[in-house]
Amino acid sequence: MAYDASVLPDVTGLTVGIIGGTGDQGRGLAYRLARAGQPVLIGSRSAARAEQAAAELRTLPGMPADATISGGDNVEVASRSDVVVIAVPWDGHRDTVAGLREPLAGKVVVDCVNPLGFDKQGPYPLRVEEGSAVQQAAALLPDSRVCAAFNHVSAPLLADPEVDRIELDVLICTEERELVGLVGALAARIPGMRGVYAGRLRNAHQIEAFTANLIAINKRYKAHAGIRVTDI
Amino acid sequence: MAYDASVLPDVTGLTVGIIGGTGDQGRGLAYRLARAGQPVLIGSRSAARAEQAAAELRTLPGMPADATISGGDNVEVASRSDVVVIAVPWDGHRDTVAGLREPLAGKVVVDCVNPLGFDKQGPYPLRVEEGSAVQQAAALLPDSRVCAAFNHVSAPLLADPEVDRIELDVLICTEERELVGLVGALAARIPGMRGVYAGRLRNAHQIEAFTANLIAINKRYKAHAGIRVTDI
Repeated sequence: MAYDASVLPDVTGLTVGIIGGTGDQGRGLAYRLARAGQPVLIGSRSAARAEQAAAELRTLPGMPADATISGGDNVEVASRSDVVVIAVPWDGHRDTVAGLREPLAGKVVVDCVNPLGFDKQGPYPLRVEEGSAVQQAAALLPDSRVCAAFNHVSAPLLADPEVDRIELDVLICTEERELVGLVGALAARIPGMRGVYAGRLRNAHQIEAFTANLIAINKRYKAHAGIRVTDI
Repeated sequence: MAYDASVLPDVTGLTVGIIGGTGDQGRGLAYRLARAGQPVLIGSRSAARAEQAAAELRTLPGMPADATISGGDNVEVASRSDVVVIAVPWDGHRDTVAGLREPLAGKVVVDCVNPLGFDKQGPYPLRVEEGSAVQQAAALLPDSRVCAAFNHVSAPLLADPEVDRIELDVLICTEERELVGLVGALAARIPGMRGVYAGRLRNAHQIEAFTANLIAINKRYKAHAGIRVTDI
């Protein structure tokens, strides 16, 4: 079937927790989702920093007066959320995810981490023993429902209150087709975004790694590039 | 700077040779380029099969009466062309490219080969010792100007005479910025296509591998998917 936003499930009541929610990507996603009316919890190693980030986001332009956004430490946020986005730096990915195995059991986990290195010639993908960040998460979280998504979303666009729409597709890699609807519905809450199934977890590496290409494109064309899948 | 088609170089006089021009991808590119008025040479191990493919393409709807398209064996085509597209199956990539080192010296070589494996779960990227097909070509062709491009172009769309426009971006990986203009201008001869710089050769692997994701997308959404870079 073609992509059809009208058949997406209702996810408006789900609480989205964002582990690493004080970083650029996590904070930006938290802002966009809360701005769209989604209940959001920002997670950080420090509950105080998470609460501060939530308080700051509440004051940003575009945020509705009744936005539901607050902060807590990572374990609390993982426990209290229905869907948990992993948005930590790659350096801390393994330890952070491993430490959340119990609170994440039974939950939907969305990994948006891109393992990249940087040198004089710019960004390049790092080799990951498990194949990709999301496969590492899946291995560490056998009782969770893990997928990759939101890898290509530009943090500066997410953070810019002047930006009303973010035109790109969120590529979703998963072994569970049902997650495509759920995560796609979350993506579609952000105006301009669609969630598109893009293969199994074993094909997530190249999506994570493609962020290096987007960085090269951004530099060359002075853009905040994303990708749109054509013909769907 | 932003993407600007008006500054592309004039490539209308360049002869484009297509090694593996009797395969689906090569044949489709040959058809589209010749249909746009580009001089095209189809290369194959067998000159007779190449000539036959060229003769068949000349009779397809949309082909101008004065189209310049003919066939020859791979060595002859490599020798007589200005720009040479490598469109052979991955299995034969190393041997074919290595055998063309001399005729390809000094030429622009565009590699569009995607090293993929297939099993019951569908396609997946193969590990390539050099990192990617295009890096293998660059290592084998030290005297050529090598880039990756046209990796994501749907062969069925290329081959369908009813299709007037193919809406997608051709991602170009290269160490030579000048090639972006030249190959981008070739891509832009096909209505709907843009050529976009997408990073150095070391970041080509994920573009080649992403074809596995496009195949998954095509299956799921019954589409001939490509990608469009947003915000440029």
